[in-house]
Amino acid sequence: MPSTYPRTAKPALIIGSVAIDRIATSVTRTGDILGGAATYASIAASYFAPAQLLGVVGADFPKRFIQRLRKHGVDLRGLRVDPAGKTFFWSGRYGENFDRCENLVTELNVLETFSPKIPAEYRDSRYIMLGAITPALQCQVMDQVPRDAFVLADTRDFWIELTRPDLERLIRRVDLFVLNENEAEALSGEKNLIVAGWNIRKMGPRIVIVKKGSHGSLLFHPDGFFALPAYPVARLVDPTGAGDSYAGALIGYLASVNRTDLPALRRAIAYATACASLTVESFGVNRLSAAGRSRIDLRYRDLAKFTRF
Amino acid sequence: MPSTYPRTAKPALIIGSVAIDRIATSVTRTGDILGGAATYASIAASYFAPAQLLGVVGADFPKRFIQRLRKHGVDLRGLRVDPAGKTFFWSGRYGENFDRCENLVTELNVLETFSPKIPAEYRDSRYIMLGAITPALQCQVMDQVPRDAFVLADTRDFWIELTRPDLERLIRRVDLFVLNENEAEALSGEKNLIVAGWNIRKMGPRIVIVKKGSHGSLLFHPDGFFALPAYPVARLVDPTGAGDSYAGALIGYLASVNRTDLPALRRAIAYATACASLTVESFGVNRLSAAGRSRIDLRYRDLAKFTRF
Repeated sequence: MPSTYPRTAKPALIIGSVAIDRIATSVTRTGDILGGAATYASIAASYFAPAQLLGVVGADFPKRFIQRLRKHGVDLRGLRVDPAGKTFFWSGRYGENFDRCENLVTELNVLETFSPKIPAEYRDSRYIMLGAITPALQCQVMDQVPRDAFVLADTRDFWIELTRPDLERLIRRVDLFVLNENEAEALSGEKNLIVAGWNIRKMGPRIVIVKKGSHGSLLFHPDGFFALPAYPVARLVDPTGAGDSYAGALIGYLASVNRTDLPALRRAIAYATACASLTVESFGVNRLSAAGRSRIDLRYRDLAKFTRF
Repeated sequence: MPSTYPRTAKPALIIGSVAIDRIATSVTRTGDILGGAATYASIAASYFAPAQLLGVVGADFPKRFIQRLRKHGVDLRGLRVDPAGKTFFWSGRYGENFDRCENLVTELNVLETFSPKIPAEYRDSRYIMLGAITPALQCQVMDQVPRDAFVLADTRDFWIELTRPDLERLIRRVDLFVLNENEAEALSGEKNLIVAGWNIRKMGPRIVIVKKGSHGSLLFHPDGFFALPAYPVARLVDPTGAGDSYAGALIGYLASVNRTDLPALRRAIAYATACASLTVESFGVNRLSAAGRSRIDLRYRDLAKFTRF
């Protein structure tokens, strides 16, 4: 059920990991499920604009996972299948309140030698999301990106710790930098997230978004500030992929309206919030994938209702 | 400069502590300043409706503190001056990031024998705030309150720990219960604040508000849910009294429009958020007191702008 897109819609190109995950919570555990930042992001983006995926999997990557992505019309011409390798595998266990996640297994496998090259078919894409692969790889993609493209970059806490110079080099070049509150504090050295957000803008990105999980998110845009609470989720099942769905919906919505001004960013954040809230209500991409655009639109309208005064 | 109030405005009666505070932060420390929940609340309320104060101070209570309250037109006929006693004194020291506060001195003094009686002059009041005195005293006030009054109750974390049965008895009887996120978790035994909020409603109060400090607040109303981010404060000076200013503005605004439906509550929360943000930008009531209604209105409109999409 690939969506029909508005006439304004441009493709959204998503670069990042495609994975096999195994997730445990205090309540239950999964078998091998479809995971990876680019997976969540491209499914979320596909609700708004044609999504293009650039990534790599191994020979073990199940056909049904491919079919899941195809169901959303995700363009997989950039998904390389390495016949000699195994797919990136991650296994983690969340604590009772999901405030901590213990990494059980991380096998990079084919990701270890991943060197993303934008294929000819994707060269015209102007809305690009750099999932949280290493900042060095993200920079490598930046070198291939047209100057007039709009680039969103995501990150992880450990890149700030381990490869800060690379990360600083990256964010000098991106348009929109998305990070969570802990990352914002670590990067800026500032506990006050309002100050942190504006300070991170001074490090390069024209636009900064700080995600605060169940407390919503903050937007720092040259034309002003915006804040949105989270969608009220009563039953959190698995937070994996919430941030990736958020970023994917963001880039997808911006691509769909082909605009990056403050009003467009505000609406993009509301759609991103809606998608993230669906993702956390099931393991993996199940709920996000099953939701359909109509349920996303419903949450978008609910968010408007919940915040208007 | 007592405000002029709309024709709909009813008086807002505030019961609670009036104190002398001495506050230290990592940056500086104050001398003896005007404090107390009822002080912050009645000044905040006075911006919206005639504020009536019910409390007690000692002979040492400085005249300039009385004048500060009078400047806001606060009705002090219910403020008893105990000539034999000393004013409630509190001294605390905040940690570097204001996430912890060490109590240095708490001298209850005249509060120790405080037994609030609503004076004849306040008997017609129908909008009542029970500041966070002991739940037993709050219940004692409830016994004097007309059945058709709208009662807001605030609390403190230690009352949940120390006097839970009294607190449970209290909240069965109040209309609006305001508490912070830690208190909501402690009272409901639920980490998810959305679930916590709805569950606390089942304990009695028709309306529940969960305050999350810099993450804003959540409203659980019979007619629906509402969430508002905090006003973006870049320079936090002293968080003391933020919650009291919030509750005072809430009851003051509801009294001013003489309504407690969902649209009124939403707007009350926006005004409460604006007042709390002013309070934390200085020590004590200084900034809240100096702000004037026009600056509060400005922040209210900013909040609308910051959250609309």
